[in-house]
Amino acid sequence: MGKSRLEAFSDGVIAIIITIMVLEMKVPHGDSLAHLTPLLPIFLSYVLSFVYIGIYWNNHHHMLHTAKRVTAPVLWANLHLLFWLSLMPFTTGWAGENHFSALPAMLYGVDLLMASIAYWLLQNAIIASEGPDSLLRSAIGKDIKGKGSIVLYGAAIAVALPVPWLSLAIYVLVALLWLIPDKRIENALLSEET
Amino acid sequence: MGKSRLEAFSDGVIAIIITIMVLEMKVPHGDSLAHLTPLLPIFLSYVLSFVYIGIYWNNHHHMLHTAKRVTAPVLWANLHLLFWLSLMPFTTGWAGENHFSALPAMLYGVDLLMASIAYWLLQNAIIASEGPDSLLRSAIGKDIKGKGSIVLYGAAIAVALPVPWLSLAIYVLVALLWLIPDKRIENALLSEET
Amino acid sequence: MGKSRLEAFSDGVIAIIITIMVLEMKVPHGDSLAHLTPLLPIFLSYVLSFVYIGIYWNNHHHMLHTAKRVTAPVLWANLHLLFWLSLMPFTTGWAGENHFSALPAMLYGVDLLMASIAYWLLQNAIIASEGPDSLLRSAIGKDIKGKGSIVLYGAAIAVALPVPWLSLAIYVLVALLWLIPDKRIENALLSEET
Amino acid sequence: MGKSRLEAFSDGVIAIIITIMVLEMKVPHGDSLAHLTPLLPIFLSYVLSFVYIGIYWNNHHHMLHTAKRVTAPVLWANLHLLFWLSLMPFTTGWAGENHFSALPAMLYGVDLLMASIAYWLLQNAIIASEGPDSLLRSAIGKDIKGKGSIVLYGAAIAVALPVPWLSLAIYVLVALLWLIPDKRIENALLSEET
Repeated sequence: MGKSRLEAFSDGVIAIIITIMVLEMKVPHGDSLAHLTPLLPIFLSYVLSFVYIGIYWNNHHHMLHTAKRVTAPVLWANLHLLFWLSLMPFTTGWAGENHFSALPAMLYGVDLLMASIAYWLLQNAIIASEGPDSLLRSAIGKDIKGKGSIVLYGAAIAVALPVPWLSLAIYVLVALLWLIPDKRIENALLSEET
Repeated sequence: MGKSRLEAFSDGVIAIIITIMVLEMKVPHGDSLAHLTPLLPIFLSYVLSFVYIGIYWNNHHHMLHTAKRVTAPVLWANLHLLFWLSLMPFTTGWAGENHFSALPAMLYGVDLLMASIAYWLLQNAIIASEGPDSLLRSAIGKDIKGKGSIVLYGAAIAVALPVPWLSLAIYVLVALLWLIPDKRIENALLSEET
Repeated sequence: MGKSRLEAFSDGVIAIIITIMVLEMKVPHGDSLAHLTPLLPIFLSYVLSFVYIGIYWNNHHHMLHTAKRVTAPVLWANLHLLFWLSLMPFTTGWAGENHFSALPAMLYGVDLLMASIAYWLLQNAIIASEGPDSLLRSAIGKDIKGKGSIVLYGAAIAVALPVPWLSLAIYVLVALLWLIPDKRIENALLSEET
Repeated sequence: MGKSRLEAFSDGVIAIIITIMVLEMKVPHGDSLAHLTPLLPIFLSYVLSFVYIGIYWNNHHHMLHTAKRVTAPVLWANLHLLFWLSLMPFTTGWAGENHFSALPAMLYGVDLLMASIAYWLLQNAIIASEGPDSLLRSAIGKDIKGKGSIVLYGAAIAVALPVPWLSLAIYVLVALLWLIPDKRIENALLSEET
């Protein structure tokens, strides 16, 4: 199994996920502003998830770029990651429709948490397949950002039921952490995690 | 018709199938746990079908990796396989929504059976196109796992109406047979079929 | 614009069309045979359209295989073909749900007719871009099959309102003409058209 | 991150967008002409958006053809463009269902405006990554057509609430400007903008 095949399949699945998410934003039956405004929270949740899927696509390829071989564990770890990402249209739609209320905010975080764990497992599977001189191992270093995200998702899940808006704030924060390339901010924020 | 074109098209179709299956899990209108729990069986049926599609994608490429040419019979045998796989979102959704009750459990098995027969036909079409020195022919050997799966799907269909839970158990078992790479377990289980 | 890019994009669109057609087959709310049987005509119309899209995908690639360049007219002729193919999930769903009654049978034919004209225009655009030594021009010869199909679609549309089952029979016939590789049957049938 | 990867992912997303738009055209429950005619405006809005997406796909690749590297700003500018394009199935469905009445006509234009701004940002990101000898910079010249379109979308949005049909006319006009390759017409029309 060549690496390019795995990348092409993952690209296909991620392209579909990022696009069908918008189908949860149903066309309203009526043409007034009153018909449109209820869709605003669904739209905003779509924006957030679009950014997350974009980040995953970006990181996924940088990671696979370092891989030389595709072993069976890498292949299944990759499918496992795609599985959790494929649930994002559902968790995004539910969270958006309910304005990130308690349970939907929690489920949104559970999916993000599972995806980040799946990403970490995939990372380990690639490193294991590469052997002691793995380029990926040295590239990720202590992987503070990856591990920090897992911790932050856990925190967001924990506060979702009592303070749902705080869990939403954490989801936005983690997305920004991955988006903004200012390394000083990252380092400052994440050095507290380690 | 180049092989890479056939692979790319199959990848595209399989990527879409594995992703739109999740659309059968409709976003509930309400944010309580009582709104979420009815989706659990649909979620579990999605997990099972995701694994099956993942297995097919994996095996499909290993098989095509051995092929050197794409003849008209190979091309149509491949489309025939994609046809039965394309019905999985439907059979999965119906089985999940009805908790794998009798008829949905049977139909789920009929689709798996047809897909496995289609896979076997594709295998034969490739071997025929390769000639007497076919690499694939020697690679699959007696194809105990492939033929055994067809027998097991047949058994699951037979017991679906009287004992639906048993047919579900067989579907899970076959998926595990293909997932778990422990050859001893496979050999032990499948030697009874031959 | 490279040819491979045009092929990849067309592959993507055709893969999506062939797969989302099945979404018109809605999961029934109930698990008895009485819930399933109303879907049979929709299933059969899906089979027919799946075969048609498969034929188009197959022919599309053989045709593009002969092309050396992609000019602006080729590109837009190709998008024009994809447009009519993209309507097949709709015409298939409508025809299936209404058991190929008069108007849906006619609209199904109109879409097939437009797609076959679009295919013919694409063929001409490629030949024009290739110049007098066009490989495609000599390969298609008099293009009896292509022109014959257009005539047959026209006939099917004409009889759809008074005798809808006959128009369905013609759609099945044309699909078989393209599927069955027995050249004598083809020649015998189509020599009457010329 | 290689350029071909970015192109393949963009191709995938655009192929899905252009195809799922048609899903907004729901199969009517009835087989008479009276059931079909209400879909005509939705069909026409689909045609318009299909042309727009086709133009974007076409231009996107000509632009990326000139790019040699993919930097982080290029990657995110590209995702930003795909985001606005991914909303087109929604804005198209809403505009079509409401016959391009005031607010839907305005929202349709807002999405087109945002997409054209996103395209312009992507263009700038590529030029910045290419350095002073950028091939793209010299190729686009003053980019009268790109900037003119942004101005026209702004005008269409401005007149959408009082005179919605005029904004629709402007959307059709801009699509034709990009479609028709007659440079004299373009120059004549756009020289008024500059």
